[in-house]
Amino acid sequence: MPPKREIPRLTRGSGRLLTFSDGVFAIAVTLLVLEIQPPHDFEHLVQGLRALWPSYLAYTLSFLLIGQVWVNHHVMFDRVRHVDRGVLFLNTLLLMVIAFLPFSTSLLADALRAEQGLRAAVVVYGGTLWTAAALFNIIWAHLRRAGLLDPGLGPCGARAIGRRFLLALVWIGSGVLVGAFAPIAGVVIIAGFLPTYYLPIRGEYGEDDRAP
Amino acid sequence: MPPKREIPRLTRGSGRLLTFSDGVFAIAVTLLVLEIQPPHDFEHLVQGLRALWPSYLAYTLSFLLIGQVWVNHHVMFDRVRHVDRGVLFLNTLLLMVIAFLPFSTSLLADALRAEQGLRAAVVVYGGTLWTAAALFNIIWAHLRRAGLLDPGLGPCGARAIGRRFLLALVWIGSGVLVGAFAPIAGVVIIAGFLPTYYLPIRGEYGEDDRAP
Amino acid sequence: MPPKREIPRLTRGSGRLLTFSDGVFAIAVTLLVLEIQPPHDFEHLVQGLRALWPSYLAYTLSFLLIGQVWVNHHVMFDRVRHVDRGVLFLNTLLLMVIAFLPFSTSLLADALRAEQGLRAAVVVYGGTLWTAAALFNIIWAHLRRAGLLDPGLGPCGARAIGRRFLLALVWIGSGVLVGAFAPIAGVVIIAGFLPTYYLPIRGEYGEDDRAP
Amino acid sequence: MPPKREIPRLTRGSGRLLTFSDGVFAIAVTLLVLEIQPPHDFEHLVQGLRALWPSYLAYTLSFLLIGQVWVNHHVMFDRVRHVDRGVLFLNTLLLMVIAFLPFSTSLLADALRAEQGLRAAVVVYGGTLWTAAALFNIIWAHLRRAGLLDPGLGPCGARAIGRRFLLALVWIGSGVLVGAFAPIAGVVIIAGFLPTYYLPIRGEYGEDDRAP
Repeated sequence: MPPKREIPRLTRGSGRLLTFSDGVFAIAVTLLVLEIQPPHDFEHLVQGLRALWPSYLAYTLSFLLIGQVWVNHHVMFDRVRHVDRGVLFLNTLLLMVIAFLPFSTSLLADALRAEQGLRAAVVVYGGTLWTAAALFNIIWAHLRRAGLLDPGLGPCGARAIGRRFLLALVWIGSGVLVGAFAPIAGVVIIAGFLPTYYLPIRGEYGEDDRAP
Repeated sequence: MPPKREIPRLTRGSGRLLTFSDGVFAIAVTLLVLEIQPPHDFEHLVQGLRALWPSYLAYTLSFLLIGQVWVNHHVMFDRVRHVDRGVLFLNTLLLMVIAFLPFSTSLLADALRAEQGLRAAVVVYGGTLWTAAALFNIIWAHLRRAGLLDPGLGPCGARAIGRRFLLALVWIGSGVLVGAFAPIAGVVIIAGFLPTYYLPIRGEYGEDDRAP
Repeated sequence: MPPKREIPRLTRGSGRLLTFSDGVFAIAVTLLVLEIQPPHDFEHLVQGLRALWPSYLAYTLSFLLIGQVWVNHHVMFDRVRHVDRGVLFLNTLLLMVIAFLPFSTSLLADALRAEQGLRAAVVVYGGTLWTAAALFNIIWAHLRRAGLLDPGLGPCGARAIGRRFLLALVWIGSGVLVGAFAPIAGVVIIAGFLPTYYLPIRGEYGEDDRAP
Repeated sequence: MPPKREIPRLTRGSGRLLTFSDGVFAIAVTLLVLEIQPPHDFEHLVQGLRALWPSYLAYTLSFLLIGQVWVNHHVMFDRVRHVDRGVLFLNTLLLMVIAFLPFSTSLLADALRAEQGLRAAVVVYGGTLWTAAALFNIIWAHLRRAGLLDPGLGPCGARAIGRRFLLALVWIGSGVLVGAFAPIAGVVIIAGFLPTYYLPIRGEYGEDDRAP
């Protein structure tokens, strides 16, 4: 009786998973600003505002990186036909890592300002992002194995998106490794990942797309 | 005139209740990170980060537990055809308990770090979760009694989901009781509830599903 | 050319207004917990937790009241066919008042704990709610005048919902007035408004509903 | 093979972009209240509450301005048929600026209270808004150039909306320039932009609308 086996799988769409995830992304990104404390000395406000540059830098970097993670989440779930409990659980792990980023960001800004502990701060910061990248790879593998992807994507498109997620893992991993010895260089490598955002993924739109 | 009696019941879907609930779940889970304060001494940052282990533990536990509660909310409302004022009110009570969890989590982390007051902290923490579990049972009973469930679920599926909610109540209740005397054991019991998340619920997908 | 006049009005549904509003409601309600500071003395944690009763009381009261305001927003916009710029503006004012409630709640809890300044705190707290109630009445009047309501509601239902909003204005206004002299009595009156939530509104479901 | 080239463009709607954006707007606007600290001296609470007037003013101004930005975002994306990676990126930049406003607002309120550093605070505050206005113009230009707009809008409507976005840029820019020398006058000019919200945009509803 194959149709009966089919019914259960079709009942759980990704609607609420996306609402919940978009909520967590939106809040994590908006909480970043709470880490920037206005200066207390208003007599020399301009200097005080200038001294906050590590906070502005960390804010911008984290906002753009979470924005990029959100875009990748978008690209991934655009191709998901339905979700199972495994996806719900793995996605919760991913959101747990994303929601931790305001802490890592605050740590990075404080270490830049203190000019101390920067290697540990960069490892924590990059490590948080690397864990998110790892979860993307795990979720994608699970979606492919469990047959939860839109058949219109095709194996070629699925591999193309998977390669992009693997690239993130390697790139950010390199940034963490370098950052453990040369923290500023590590941050530059991680920030350098942002422009990959622009590169269209071959096969992202389906088996047949030749024009990106 | 039975059709006229039917019309009002059909006008209120669960759409906005889900948007509002997903918002509260997403925010409660993302606020957890605000309880983790970065260390102040950046000269010995690694030690300072290590000393925060109770906060990481409490963060992870609460994030996964709220994630699990969200999944159960998802399972429950997937089967709700429409909502009445009773559901709106009971759901508000449930969200009130969920939104309290950042406080309970902070308390648990602080007590673990202070190595004092742990019994009270575990009772408050587990008690918050137990109240959420109790509300799930009350909402489910109300949905069944008021005939608000999707008829496709059938009494067998409704009982199966109800048994799962009852199991949560008993399990977490045991954790609280044990925690009042042996707090660490209580936390372990509560954390031990997380894997039940994986067990598929018999009948969850409808009267006829034989394949989970 | 009446059809051309009709087209513009139909292009703006209430979808995004509801997403935005539900977001603000969900965040305002979840931020309430941030006002409850865990005790610092973990040696006497039970006493410390007991001393926080004004915070628990204010948290519960505000959560249920915002929950009730959300339900009324739900009831109101269930009947809105499309929105104009006036609705968008008035709704923004309403959300501005709702988002202010965490401050008022914090003030009420602190005044209860300090056993000082309670009259001012109750007037600010009740005044915030009263302003929200006033805006409900203004929005409803605007929706009726501008013909933005679902015609299925009928004038009888529109009047019934309007009367409920007027009752809120008078009830909470009385609580504020009493609270200016006897603050505890004022809080009791405001809290006493919560059960009206249960009373079905005659005509809420449309012209013809005889069964609530 | 033109149809194959069309398919990819059609697959990405604006749904998740709007959920994510509405989340950020809702959170940014609700976080504003966290900047208002309740007075500590409850013996003279009324005076303490009065002294907070700069916070109330900054809260109201920022809430209404973010509300207005949200309405403009609504007006803009009502006319977007589908989104590309450029829109996702530019929208992330816009949200990054909006999410920064709680910091600018706090700065403005603190400077008003301190009666020091007001010129820098107004320049930061207005500069944040001006950057948001600039991004609106950039996004609109990109949408027009990339052919992502609803064809029903027509070039006349697209130009009319573009002119409105340009007006915001000039108006707020003037406020910043004036504010660099006469800070209070700068705030008044920026606040004076709020009523333009009421003016209907000619052509906003499509090529043919003669009645706004």
